Amino acid sequence: MNAYSRDAHEIYRQSFAIIRSEADLSRIPADLEAVAVRVAHACGMPDVIDDLVFSEGAGTAGRAALEAGAPVLCDCRMVAEGITRARLPADNAVVCTLNDPAVPQMARDMETTRSAAAVELWRPHLGGAIVAIGNAPTALFHLLTLLDDPDTPRPALVLGFPVGYVGAVESKEALAADSRGAPFVALRGRRGGSAMAAAAVNAFGREAHG
Amino acid sequence: MNAYSRDAHEIYRQSFAIIRSEADLSRIPADLEAVAVRVAHACGMPDVIDDLVFSEGAGTAGRAALEAGAPVLCDCRMVAEGITRARLPADNAVVCTLNDPAVPQMARDMETTRSAAAVELWRPHLGGAIVAIGNAPTALFHLLTLLDDPDTPRPALVLGFPVGYVGAVESKEALAADSRGAPFVALRGRRGGSAMAAAAVNAFGREAHG
Repeated sequence: MNAYSRDAHEIYRQSFAIIRSEADLSRIPADLEAVAVRVAHACGMPDVIDDLVFSEGAGTAGRAALEAGAPVLCDCRMVAEGITRARLPADNAVVCTLNDPAVPQMARDMETTRSAAAVELWRPHLGGAIVAIGNAPTALFHLLTLLDDPDTPRPALVLGFPVGYVGAVESKEALAADSRGAPFVALRGRRGGSAMAAAAVNAFGREAHG
Repeated sequence: MNAYSRDAHEIYRQSFAIIRSEADLSRIPADLEAVAVRVAHACGMPDVIDDLVFSEGAGTAGRAALEAGAPVLCDCRMVAEGITRARLPADNAVVCTLNDPAVPQMARDMETTRSAAAVELWRPHLGGAIVAIGNAPTALFHLLTLLDDPDTPRPALVLGFPVGYVGAVESKEALAADSRGAPFVALRGRRGGSAMAAAAVNAFGREAHG
């Protein structure tokens, strides 16, 4: 009972060593290795790495954007809370518009979810941003609708980790099939979540353990 | 592309129907059915229900405590953010001590993690509380250490969902083997996380879809 590990740095080190010993990283490019390991760390399942899909150079694009001061646009507060501010290289803004007072009425007018309506409010921040979706498939679907307009500025990176039974699979497949010119990393299938989306952002930050 | 579901209530309804059609709920007592379905909803994996362990009457105890105004003690901000305040039946306090300014020095003095040190600050709130651990095995281990003292008041319910590779399995097995007289629900294995812990709290709230 008293023998458990209490050294945070050592727990991280051991965790990452276990992931590297169990996971197949052969398919993961060097610029996404830290992302893959941190996503597996967030969920306790090394095999999620087998379900990662990504565009070439996505890791390099994400890291460069973050270092250049890109904001991080999150679909829910849990993703925003999961981002370790001390790791962000340029005191980057972490933006979540879900609880904006305009959103409930927008959702009614647009006949969609609050999560999708909140993505409308990303428009002025979208060009060059890091997008981190860890909850709502409708947020990812609505982002793709915005990007169908060629005049919408492209984000620097889309991290697609919505979770669940209705739309999660389909929204991530739609992103992977045609990301509308935006670099992306996504997790195929029903699995996903705020912790994985936040971990992917954290992987681009400073003092990587992964 | 435009055919995706946008009706939040309908998405919930379909999601819960899919979970009920795929999961084996035969082992789950009636007072924990909503918890089981919502935990599966949070992670996209119906088979987590097979790994739930619980004490008899844990669901009834949790619901009664929440309705009586029990605070919810969370090990991290993500759990706190995942709890839907509108569902809480008694305007219950949601407490997360992790970012208390005293915690870093306490962790150094105690030679443990910040997550475990933060649990020390739960002492005045612990009697009759709902404890929701969705991240740190060391928080759950430290809670068990507190409860080894018979003078420590028992929480009304411990929701044990720490995640990961070092200590997660062991901390949840320690809880299940001897919960020190506290009702509990936990997820065996490496899987867990803030979304599941928050979903378990939300399942006790009002207007349950599950």
